[in-house]
Amino acid sequence: MKHNYLSNTPLEDAKANYFDFVKKSGFKFQTEKINSQKSNGRILAAPVYAKLCSPHYNASAMDGVAVWAEDTYGASEINHITLDKEHYTEVDTGDALPENTDAVIMVEDILSENNGEITINAPVHPWQNVRQVGEDLCMGDMIASSYTKITPYFCGAFLAGGVKQVEVIKKPVFGIIPTGDEIIAPDKDPEKGEILEFNSSVFSAMLSEWGADSIVYDIVPDKKELLTEAVKKAKSECDCVLLLAGSSAGRDDYTSEIVSSLGTLCVHGIAVKPGKPAILGAIDETPVIGLPGYPVSAIVIMNEIVKELVGIYYNVKIEEEKTIKAVLGKRVVSSLKYREYIRVTLGKIDGKYIAVPLPRGAGIITSFTKALGVIEIPQNCEGIEQGDVIEVKILTDEKNIENALIITGSHDPIIDEIADILKKKDNNILVTSSHVGSMGAIDAIKSGRAHLGAIHLLDEKTGEYNQSYIDKYFPNGGVVLKKGVKRIQGLMVAKGNPLNINKFEDIVGHRYVSRQRGSGTRILCDYLIKKYNMNIDDINGYDNEEFTHTAVAANIKAGNADVGLGIYSAAKMYDLDFIPICDEEYDFLIDEKYIDSPLTKAFLSALDSDEFIERIELLGGYSKEK
Amino acid sequence: MKHNYLSNTPLEDAKANYFDFVKKSGFKFQTEKINSQKSNGRILAAPVYAKLCSPHYNASAMDGVAVWAEDTYGASEINHITLDKEHYTEVDTGDALPENTDAVIMVEDILSENNGEITINAPVHPWQNVRQVGEDLCMGDMIASSYTKITPYFCGAFLAGGVKQVEVIKKPVFGIIPTGDEIIAPDKDPEKGEILEFNSSVFSAMLSEWGADSIVYDIVPDKKELLTEAVKKAKSECDCVLLLAGSSAGRDDYTSEIVSSLGTLCVHGIAVKPGKPAILGAIDETPVIGLPGYPVSAIVIMNEIVKELVGIYYNVKIEEEKTIKAVLGKRVVSSLKYREYIRVTLGKIDGKYIAVPLPRGAGIITSFTKALGVIEIPQNCEGIEQGDVIEVKILTDEKNIENALIITGSHDPIIDEIADILKKKDNNILVTSSHVGSMGAIDAIKSGRAHLGAIHLLDEKTGEYNQSYIDKYFPNGGVVLKKGVKRIQGLMVAKGNPLNINKFEDIVGHRYVSRQRGSGTRILCDYLIKKYNMNIDDINGYDNEEFTHTAVAANIKAGNADVGLGIYSAAKMYDLDFIPICDEEYDFLIDEKYIDSPLTKAFLSALDSDEFIERIELLGGYSKEK
Repeated sequence: MKHNYLSNTPLEDAKANYFDFVKKSGFKFQTEKINSQKSNGRILAAPVYAKLCSPHYNASAMDGVAVWAEDTYGASEINHITLDKEHYTEVDTGDALPENTDAVIMVEDILSENNGEITINAPVHPWQNVRQVGEDLCMGDMIASSYTKITPYFCGAFLAGGVKQVEVIKKPVFGIIPTGDEIIAPDKDPEKGEILEFNSSVFSAMLSEWGADSIVYDIVPDKKELLTEAVKKAKSECDCVLLLAGSSAGRDDYTSEIVSSLGTLCVHGIAVKPGKPAILGAIDETPVIGLPGYPVSAIVIMNEIVKELVGIYYNVKIEEEKTIKAVLGKRVVSSLKYREYIRVTLGKIDGKYIAVPLPRGAGIITSFTKALGVIEIPQNCEGIEQGDVIEVKILTDEKNIENALIITGSHDPIIDEIADILKKKDNNILVTSSHVGSMGAIDAIKSGRAHLGAIHLLDEKTGEYNQSYIDKYFPNGGVVLKKGVKRIQGLMVAKGNPLNINKFEDIVGHRYVSRQRGSGTRILCDYLIKKYNMNIDDINGYDNEEFTHTAVAANIKAGNADVGLGIYSAAKMYDLDFIPICDEEYDFLIDEKYIDSPLTKAFLSALDSDEFIERIELLGGYSKEK
Repeated sequence: MKHNYLSNTPLEDAKANYFDFVKKSGFKFQTEKINSQKSNGRILAAPVYAKLCSPHYNASAMDGVAVWAEDTYGASEINHITLDKEHYTEVDTGDALPENTDAVIMVEDILSENNGEITINAPVHPWQNVRQVGEDLCMGDMIASSYTKITPYFCGAFLAGGVKQVEVIKKPVFGIIPTGDEIIAPDKDPEKGEILEFNSSVFSAMLSEWGADSIVYDIVPDKKELLTEAVKKAKSECDCVLLLAGSSAGRDDYTSEIVSSLGTLCVHGIAVKPGKPAILGAIDETPVIGLPGYPVSAIVIMNEIVKELVGIYYNVKIEEEKTIKAVLGKRVVSSLKYREYIRVTLGKIDGKYIAVPLPRGAGIITSFTKALGVIEIPQNCEGIEQGDVIEVKILTDEKNIENALIITGSHDPIIDEIADILKKKDNNILVTSSHVGSMGAIDAIKSGRAHLGAIHLLDEKTGEYNQSYIDKYFPNGGVVLKKGVKRIQGLMVAKGNPLNINKFEDIVGHRYVSRQRGSGTRILCDYLIKKYNMNIDDINGYDNEEFTHTAVAANIKAGNADVGLGIYSAAKMYDLDFIPICDEEYDFLIDEKYIDSPLTKAFLSALDSDEFIERIELLGGYSKEK
């Protein structure tokens, strides 16, 4: 088992060396001529000068009659002047002024028309109501300088100036080569052990947003000769080559060898996490980059390196991302060895931005779909404490962050359904939810890290839900409990219940999958263990924690576990058998301060909508008082 | 000569009535299914749920060996454990975990491999180095809610969740019908009286930026039957129809009649300037809008009405444009009858934004290519004074405005050349120049409305240029004069000099075209009139003012005038004959405060560059000390 070691080059050094290297290798823009009509959004490679005046003749600016201004001098309210057919010509807006005329009388200003004679009561001066040659543009005027980004208005000005083609910077073409024996094309259906290739779709869309085109090549298996051929072909057809995966140091990772043999390997291994196993090199003037196989790692390298490479091609500085100061909603620990990038959701509470870290796994692309910001933890920093103020690169407008409703606490698919109903009513509101369990919700509301908390907390003594916890944790009040839904909790087991699990006590001796500590479902589990005098040590998998009901169901469906506690709708979704245990109350805890905020009101109105009732009926296992 | 009168409906009323009307008529979005791979930038019409877990099987997260975790328990530095071939399986990242394994030992953590046996010194726990089913996404999880704008990351998440197609809002198709007898297709060469049709290119690019597609139809002449047929065809093929021109009240303006006869005319005539003669109507559920023929008028209606119509189709609120407070650099007068839109350049001087109004003609599309902002003068307001603080809608980032170098004063094409050289060196700097003449430059620098002023001011007593004016207008100093170029001024006359004009005195008896009051060239003209004891009243056209040398040349070329004073390069550009009068010094006046600013330095370095020398040699008539 071969194993190469990667370097751990700090990002700044890697970038400085590599960009210097590719510039010296001759990586720079090409140009092309395109029709002015279709040039919107492109970047000019050279200044554009008008070839024609606009207007290119003296044009009537109005509908009316063209006259020789001198013929109208002296006309007034008391001295009307009449012009015969020899002394005026009817003109429409845009018509060329006839010979021997130098002004236009507007149709509204003609007093009368009789036998071809017109009468006026005011003079016009030379060039009145006339667009003189060159009013807008004169031949030879520079319409736009080099490197101007063409707007719709420029398309018009180019044509107005008689410029039918403009020289623009050719979009760079990035060749994207997906690799890996386990990867299959995204139009196929994956078997076990096969992964749909989606990275190329992500990168090609990112490149397009940065002004680059891309060619996505067929997936290449982990065979050195095939990979070499693919790189050579892409090199001959593209301005830059991206190899997806194969940049690590595993037994099938040939990228670094290929780059070294065909060209120059500049950097292999960057001190960032995720993203470490990146390869930066070039073959002749063509940059060749090996991206890590995990989507989140690769996206980090795309954003940190490839985006700037596109900027180098275009010879523009990449805009710095906007940052805001935010309070960190949850402690993060980090390695001293790497600069770490952590995606966060954001919202504004009590005038402060709150950043809540999202899952950090390199394979979790949904951390990017949910992220509103990214924080960087420097190399040589062990982590950041909850409550610390940090700088966050924002991925959206501040306004959108201010319109984000932060819901945290217990997981239930109904939160997404409410968010969807809400979004359809008011597209400006964004719901960001995180699953920290019911006790997490109480903590977040207490410390001002969420607008709403979702809870279902059973009081072991009374058998009632939620209220006693509020009394305990908010002795001075300040929060409102809004009733949500009733839902059925029970045991999820494989279809047909092959292990014959019929009551909670039956979980002993089977592989159990648990919810995380602090979740209402875990508290229910503990309550049941106590109620039935069971012993935690007898439960195989009590520490095997998942964060959502669907994750529990997915693990049972996959055979990773035999049984788990969860809600009916999750069992139904996964076609599992379900042994009901109890009904519980899933409610919303709201800080009194936000009860009248537009965000909260919109949420509660979606919760009370008919559409929501229809949706929970479809999900199954819920009921709601109207 | 027919003449309809337009209404003068205030914009807010026109919008409220019309948008209410089109919503009731049933104007709303259609949906379509598209491949997730190509969905970036589109808007979801429905929520997207994962159809597959991601990963959809337990996958090795590392290159290494898959084992049953229990087999490794007890391994330590002092108690190595050896596993034979039956108890481990080699796996690559992404491989499915074999039956009866639940953890992966990283290749780096294997101490040795011998005869198929491996030795380790640390245990792994269950699911260590494994991406469990659903780590990223569980089947049934909502990946994105309705109306989400799809990002590159969502393209990846959809595919990761096994969703190969998504339902998005179909882009609305706008039918654009250019009309008018004087209009010709943009691929033709215009004769006198013909205008290249460029509005459709501008609007189709604007629509594309707002998320709409467009079909541009052939130009329709001003014939009612042809226009009616064209509208019917476009109505049957598009979601919205735009008729270009024909919305005024002139003799050939049929749009309002056609809309009335085929559907409903809602508004004809809006109290905005430019933009008044707009028509808002609908045929069945299809909005039909008549746009004014002048590009600036039509663009105002596009921005104020059509943009919001696209928003209504998509069911999103149109984002409000960002505004800044700026000091008005020049007085503007406005009509009490209309809300007026005036385009402005912007820059920052002494910590304040300065807005300088651009030409206001409805035909001047370059006012949009030069604008960095737009000011609105309310109906019932007569105008705004120079120095007043006003609100400006900005059309670019504030950062770009801060990087704008404001040059004002005398016109010379070399300013654009310097701007182009500068832009090629540092794409972040923007030069905004306006032509207010040399005396205007002195005034602007004195009152802090420009960074640099371009001047060529002749002292009649000494025959010297510029310095004596500085001594007079800046008695306390505070400015620096930077030498620019020497250039030749003279008389421009038609090719072959048919009127035999050989010296300045010869202009008497011919049609003269003048530069504006306050320009250095006008001062030169006055100096020459005095020198040769001529009488202003004898000069036919002394009040016929143009603002640039190229505009003077264009008017002579077009036969609007016989002779004018200007620089050699303009005469050369227009292939005119040129009678040299004198050499003059065209210099730059700089407020001392900005002499060391990066913007000024970049400008002066471009002025001193070899490339600039090459360019002025090409233009002709210039010299510069190195």
